[in-house]
Amino acid sequence: MRVGAVQFAPTFGDVRGNLERCLALVSSADADLFVLPELALSGYVFESREEAESLAQDPDAEEFAALASAGAERGAAIVVGFAERAGDSLYNSSVLLAPDGSRSVYRKIHLFNDEKRIFDPGDRPPAVVDVGGARLGMMICFDWIFPETARTLALLGADVLCHPANLVLPYCQRAMVTRCIENRVFAVTANRVGTEERAGQSWTFTGQSEIVAQSGEILARAAPEGDAVIVAEIAHEEARNKLVTPANHIIEDRRPELYRLG
Amino acid sequence: MRVGAVQFAPTFGDVRGNLERCLALVSSADADLFVLPELALSGYVFESREEAESLAQDPDAEEFAALASAGAERGAAIVVGFAERAGDSLYNSSVLLAPDGSRSVYRKIHLFNDEKRIFDPGDRPPAVVDVGGARLGMMICFDWIFPETARTLALLGADVLCHPANLVLPYCQRAMVTRCIENRVFAVTANRVGTEERAGQSWTFTGQSEIVAQSGEILARAAPEGDAVIVAEIAHEEARNKLVTPANHIIEDRRPELYRLG
Repeated sequence: MRVGAVQFAPTFGDVRGNLERCLALVSSADADLFVLPELALSGYVFESREEAESLAQDPDAEEFAALASAGAERGAAIVVGFAERAGDSLYNSSVLLAPDGSRSVYRKIHLFNDEKRIFDPGDRPPAVVDVGGARLGMMICFDWIFPETARTLALLGADVLCHPANLVLPYCQRAMVTRCIENRVFAVTANRVGTEERAGQSWTFTGQSEIVAQSGEILARAAPEGDAVIVAEIAHEEARNKLVTPANHIIEDRRPELYRLG
Repeated sequence: MRVGAVQFAPTFGDVRGNLERCLALVSSADADLFVLPELALSGYVFESREEAESLAQDPDAEEFAALASAGAERGAAIVVGFAERAGDSLYNSSVLLAPDGSRSVYRKIHLFNDEKRIFDPGDRPPAVVDVGGARLGMMICFDWIFPETARTLALLGADVLCHPANLVLPYCQRAMVTRCIENRVFAVTANRVGTEERAGQSWTFTGQSEIVAQSGEILARAAPEGDAVIVAEIAHEEARNKLVTPANHIIEDRRPELYRLG
């Protein structure tokens, strides 16, 4: 399958404009799966929870219908990050829009820094969704620093980690190589670029969206700045071969009875 | 405290000569903790379990008394890998020789490749030992690829991961940066160098022993070849500050109730 990461700089608060940019970038490339950044429609730095609520969608919103249509036309699944309104709750979420019209939502379980003031933490375990025979797992941005996130997805059978991000620290792109090696899964990290100066804060996002193989090989990496769509061909079934040597199955070799992970 | 990694090429089967080399290298530098490679006294490629047994020690062996003395003279703790004879069992172990004369043994819980034919897997959980106020945890070589090893040690309160190694794959040195960042601990990886051609096998070890800070900074790294002692000054107490941002405590932010790690 061909997997892509879409990198761009959302304009804060311009949901319509950001959607158009997403649609244009998806239409500029050919892939079976596109991963877009975290909070791609709203922007990142909210002054208040109320402001975030005013820019939030629910997964049935028309914006996702438009994205799903653009994907379905090309036979592609799309993963995109968004602020999710759900009753009185507000999550930093991503939605997986499958070509068959189905939608799956992941709610970020590890909120970063000021996000704790804006969002509710995800209330459901990470999950794996089968799309055309590929098993896709979603995690969002800072989830990367907790090895338990990718491990949980790998143990649930994920072939590909779909990883929308708004990264500001410099570590994740290298760490995703470790995440792939230790789990023998593929990963598509779609990071945003640009700087947001709002609410007395200034955050510059680090780009370098990347696609990493289960072997740890970096198959594609975007520049630190600028819009980009990177695409790589992957044999996602290789993620189901967990042998790192003829005698070492990276999952079966675990020793849960000796770990102290409480 | 000052921590050091000792890198050299053990000569297969020459326990006495390897011990002398260890003693000379430890005596050439000044540190409070020296970590030496995995199986530093015996060499690595055993033809059979019987051969490994013939080159094994128990933790009370005179070789460790000599190393402990050399360490104690300098006020230093020493961690060294060895083949451990324990009744009918044979482990790929490391011993921590503290300046006060106490000894702690770790038995590698994730055996690599042909080691499964030679050794018994470790039968006890990883543990943390307090030496002069520094909390030291041991893990050996291939243990690195399982994030549960370093995580277990971090959750037990380790400040410093003491990591004897005989690495042949090219990934670990970079992955240890991730291990340090995700746990906010220090790590001292002591890797061997050289090539062993025995028993129809040929293994070349990758050197590049390294000391990594809890921030992910590589404080010292040796060359891929050649003997070396690398030393770095660390403030090990910084490993107890688990805040990666003012709002993110890398341990307390975990969501064990949502992980699926069985």
